[in-house]
Amino acid sequence: MEVYRDELSVRTSKRLEILDITDQVKESISRSGILEGFVILWEPHTTATIAVNEGDPELWQDILDTFTRLVPIDRGYRHNAKYRGIPGEQNAHAHILNCLCGPSISIPLVEGRLTLGTWQRILFIELDGPRSRRVFLQVVGE
Amino acid sequence: MEVYRDELSVRTSKRLEILDITDQVKESISRSGILEGFVILWEPHTTATIAVNEGDPELWQDILDTFTRLVPIDRGYRHNAKYRGIPGEQNAHAHILNCLCGPSISIPLVEGRLTLGTWQRILFIELDGPRSRRVFLQVVGE
Amino acid sequence: MEVYRDELSVRTSKRLEILDITDQVKESISRSGILEGFVILWEPHTTATIAVNEGDPELWQDILDTFTRLVPIDRGYRHNAKYRGIPGEQNAHAHILNCLCGPSISIPLVEGRLTLGTWQRILFIELDGPRSRRVFLQVVGE
Repeated sequence: MEVYRDELSVRTSKRLEILDITDQVKESISRSGILEGFVILWEPHTTATIAVNEGDPELWQDILDTFTRLVPIDRGYRHNAKYRGIPGEQNAHAHILNCLCGPSISIPLVEGRLTLGTWQRILFIELDGPRSRRVFLQVVGE
Repeated sequence: MEVYRDELSVRTSKRLEILDITDQVKESISRSGILEGFVILWEPHTTATIAVNEGDPELWQDILDTFTRLVPIDRGYRHNAKYRGIPGEQNAHAHILNCLCGPSISIPLVEGRLTLGTWQRILFIELDGPRSRRVFLQVVGE
Repeated sequence: MEVYRDELSVRTSKRLEILDITDQVKESISRSGILEGFVILWEPHTTATIAVNEGDPELWQDILDTFTRLVPIDRGYRHNAKYRGIPGEQNAHAHILNCLCGPSISIPLVEGRLTLGTWQRILFIELDGPRSRRVFLQVVGE
């Protein structure tokens, strides 16, 4: 069993934003040389998340609109009240959405390629930007 | 480390539907011969998802009702407007729910058996059917 | 490839409650002796879930408030009606939230340590307590 690790940098430019990181993930998997196994994507942040879905910017806006309709940015959260006056901590909505969506995704590899379906792209979802973000990537296999 | 892979076929018959695929997953794990390790379930679709929960059809209806109450099928989505007139693309709700629920689940194996609790069944959740669907299955271990 | 397994016990004391289990997970990883690899956390219950987020009790209350605002405890669920009169089965909300949040999280290990970010703690989320719960832990690597 080989374990290859890498870290991607993601620079977000808005409060809420979706970025397609599929190509960066593919390059990293190529560098690993691993053919049969899987990749674990892990984002070490509590106010962003990762998903796998279509590469359609209109859909991305639908996703973000729905997220903030269900979990509004301003809603009298205890977390925000506790850190009142600290702009970077008015982000309970982002923490809650991270709990719903999760911080990791594991994707099988076959012959060195991600088993993504036709419409699947790997999406980094910023929920409290703009910020510099990291995605930890671990390729495991042979 | 051994890596065994398999693919399950799932045929859904409704727009929204939950199917229990536990027995198919168990058969595949038996064929793998792997005793200690884990299985990664991966669905390569952007408008369906996988969950693990109770095998109760009434509960399944509660789950689907809640999903479409939170993310209604008709709600003026940009994605649907962009593909207006294409019936197969009026499915932003399904994409959004997939982002919330996720495309993969990893389940540990002990002595060749899934570590499912008493009430846990593996559920394929169709969000934009009826369609022919696939579930990719990768068993990793020794 | 080595596979080490362990099981954590979690005792919850409320209907809805969040407990920080990071230290228990870290102790188990230390005992495994595995340095490079990952851990799969698996909870074998259908009415609880696991998340990774900040160790802030005020935020935890925001999370639980949002969960039950989106998926109310009392809402005429078919599952609850079917098991009317059985107090332990009035819990469709918990099943549905488990489907949204998921039963497993995989976290990479580097040099024997979890790759948790500064604010990330591993949280057990009780959705239908108080109960005795288990978290299955599988460390895989070398």
